[in-house]
Amino acid sequence: MQKIAIFPGSFDPLTRGHENIVKRAVPLFDRIIIAVGQNSEKKSYFSIEKRIFFLETIFADYPSVEIDKYTGLTVEYCKKVGANYILRGLRTSADFEFERSIAQVNKKLYPEIETVFLLTLPEYTAINSSVVRDILRHGGDPSLFIPEGLSLG
Amino acid sequence: MQKIAIFPGSFDPLTRGHENIVKRAVPLFDRIIIAVGQNSEKKSYFSIEKRIFFLETIFADYPSVEIDKYTGLTVEYCKKVGANYILRGLRTSADFEFERSIAQVNKKLYPEIETVFLLTLPEYTAINSSVVRDILRHGGDPSLFIPEGLSLG
Amino acid sequence: MQKIAIFPGSFDPLTRGHENIVKRAVPLFDRIIIAVGQNSEKKSYFSIEKRIFFLETIFADYPSVEIDKYTGLTVEYCKKVGANYILRGLRTSADFEFERSIAQVNKKLYPEIETVFLLTLPEYTAINSSVVRDILRHGGDPSLFIPEGLSLG
Amino acid sequence: MQKIAIFPGSFDPLTRGHENIVKRAVPLFDRIIIAVGQNSEKKSYFSIEKRIFFLETIFADYPSVEIDKYTGLTVEYCKKVGANYILRGLRTSADFEFERSIAQVNKKLYPEIETVFLLTLPEYTAINSSVVRDILRHGGDPSLFIPEGLSLG
Amino acid sequence: MQKIAIFPGSFDPLTRGHENIVKRAVPLFDRIIIAVGQNSEKKSYFSIEKRIFFLETIFADYPSVEIDKYTGLTVEYCKKVGANYILRGLRTSADFEFERSIAQVNKKLYPEIETVFLLTLPEYTAINSSVVRDILRHGGDPSLFIPEGLSLG
Amino acid sequence: MQKIAIFPGSFDPLTRGHENIVKRAVPLFDRIIIAVGQNSEKKSYFSIEKRIFFLETIFADYPSVEIDKYTGLTVEYCKKVGANYILRGLRTSADFEFERSIAQVNKKLYPEIETVFLLTLPEYTAINSSVVRDILRHGGDPSLFIPEGLSLG
Repeated sequence: MQKIAIFPGSFDPLTRGHENIVKRAVPLFDRIIIAVGQNSEKKSYFSIEKRIFFLETIFADYPSVEIDKYTGLTVEYCKKVGANYILRGLRTSADFEFERSIAQVNKKLYPEIETVFLLTLPEYTAINSSVVRDILRHGGDPSLFIPEGLSLG
Repeated sequence: MQKIAIFPGSFDPLTRGHENIVKRAVPLFDRIIIAVGQNSEKKSYFSIEKRIFFLETIFADYPSVEIDKYTGLTVEYCKKVGANYILRGLRTSADFEFERSIAQVNKKLYPEIETVFLLTLPEYTAINSSVVRDILRHGGDPSLFIPEGLSLG
Repeated sequence: MQKIAIFPGSFDPLTRGHENIVKRAVPLFDRIIIAVGQNSEKKSYFSIEKRIFFLETIFADYPSVEIDKYTGLTVEYCKKVGANYILRGLRTSADFEFERSIAQVNKKLYPEIETVFLLTLPEYTAINSSVVRDILRHGGDPSLFIPEGLSLG
Repeated sequence: MQKIAIFPGSFDPLTRGHENIVKRAVPLFDRIIIAVGQNSEKKSYFSIEKRIFFLETIFADYPSVEIDKYTGLTVEYCKKVGANYILRGLRTSADFEFERSIAQVNKKLYPEIETVFLLTLPEYTAINSSVVRDILRHGGDPSLFIPEGLSLG
Repeated sequence: MQKIAIFPGSFDPLTRGHENIVKRAVPLFDRIIIAVGQNSEKKSYFSIEKRIFFLETIFADYPSVEIDKYTGLTVEYCKKVGANYILRGLRTSADFEFERSIAQVNKKLYPEIETVFLLTLPEYTAINSSVVRDILRHGGDPSLFIPEGLSLG
Repeated sequence: MQKIAIFPGSFDPLTRGHENIVKRAVPLFDRIIIAVGQNSEKKSYFSIEKRIFFLETIFADYPSVEIDKYTGLTVEYCKKVGANYILRGLRTSADFEFERSIAQVNKKLYPEIETVFLLTLPEYTAINSSVVRDILRHGGDPSLFIPEGLSLG
């Protein structure tokens, strides 16, 4: 059976942490689908098109990595695309508690799904999309936190 | 002196976790008042009437369990109804930090009150009302997370 | 049914934290048995006789509080004395993770048992028996950490 | 080189915890600037003028403590006023995870800055500005949580 | 490239938690080597031969699962057997902090290695080998905590 | 008043994490005394002489940093040398819980003492002396974890 993982998130925007997790997971799975969640209730900083464009730019040379968007429950999307794994990065123990709850709920809703965790590298631990947005809002330069060479302009 | 506990929350909606904590606490207290907090600033998913109805349905056979609603500070409500205990369930260490702060503030405001904690059973650890609402919003089926036989329709 | 709780520990020696938890739990239970665990593998600082003597001294005026010693599994002792509750204090989130594991194991081994947690008051959070022993070993004065008026001499 | 620390926050309003951290840090720094962040997106409970007035009242007798306000990134403000330290209080392990992320981001953006942490005293651990606002909103009396003698009226 | 994972531990003895993690990881890797660490400094409860025998019994029907023993640094063993993954189960946030440190040290010592984490199912969260040994030492019955049908006699 | 800090530990051996914390703290204090605790009950890997020699080598060019050894309670040593600060590094939230307890006990025993925390840099978070000893015991190379240029031979 093909090993298909989804890497769900809002990627508003993509960070170096996200980039690193996916690239390290490439050898583990046959296909990785980066699934950009569309949440109608929460206004995003970047449009869904831009968020997808950033991801496509960074993973252009990775044939097993695809970019998609979805709405609704993550496990429903997994069923639809035939994914048997959810890939997640773990940064801190606060992260862990949160991710554990989500993974346990997902497994209750869809027992065939397995969530696989990789550790965020120490140098990316403090980075998340909300930090990047905060720096942007205040007119700062977030280039140390987003993938090298990516332009958010 | 009668042992009267309140079990405060928004119960939007009641989960299997809530149900289990209250039923296990029944032998410990003479009366348990499930106190549904009305927060004028936060819009609830279910109306206060529905939330109370769900609770009344599930605890109909428990004569020492009552359902009530309240506004204002929890300790003021305790004084009003003569409760000397606040009952809470603990799920995770993130929970613990949060509950500890609230309990310490309540004890400062009303030193006679004692917060009593029971552990959420492992199988209910990942469940909370916000998970149930999320599943409902996305058209999923939350029946594994709410009390058996309860219809939210 | 009588509400009987055991408060298990090694009490080597009793601290202000222990004293405070038991005194606050007195109104909640019909009887509280402070059960001093005898661990043949771990050498204690104070003899079992002294540890019991300290406890008897401090709780002399509390008719519902008894002192006992036990060996073996805590749940077996609970069955023997007819206890339906285990009383524990919670200090920190590290504590919580540890206590949760023990409580879950106990509930698996003996489903009728319920572990009830009270919060250690903030001023006693840093105190434990090992701190007291450490101070004693280095010739310091632990009187701020043990019950007022207790002499360890 | 002068040791200049900023103590950033929204101070909406000042609590006993804030007061205690700054007073204990006074001997460590040549100057401490309490920097009230103005967040255009989040409505505050007290106006920026009131929040500054409370701080000026409490620290009137501390010549090395100044009050200022700022917008934008905290590290940019540090550069502007020549601060080489950020002072923070730590209360709980949840706090710690959060503060560590912010401090790591700040150090990435401005490697010369050092964040210095003091521990919140146990008796102030449960206090934060949001607790005070909550009590005020419900018509309670927050005087145990704000600096002695301070009137919020 | 073949995906080879080692699952290191002392397995003194194997628990239901260990069993469950390995069985869930089988589809993810081409080979899983359960590597029983021999620690000359720590006396084990069961002999290395017994610990291996328990593992061989439980995984007899899993052709991609092998049992081996090793001494020395885990990463050296990975190099020797050509493993590119270390498989670990995560139970609690205390676990997480501990596992993160080990995984980060391993990645420093051998950058090609990737640690992959699965979540322990909620019902096995409280179980570890030391709990089983404790029950055995006190003459209790650990059968709920070890793989079904396994006899430790 | 002179700002004198002690940095207590067993330094068995010194790590890059220790080195980094002290060097970053140099501008904050007039003097820093690295105080090597001698624990008669715990056998160290390196002799007290070697541990001191490593520290003296690494801090030879730092005139405000001294190396000393001590036995007994840390706060008694502080009184003896006139230190008003204890310097500590914080790595993880598990660390934090532990350090907070020690700092609170120290403040109870000696209210004039203030514990000042700096954050361990992310790249040193997983490093501690026990990791270094473990690598040495297994014949590995710990040079990435100890100060650059230090020879433990």
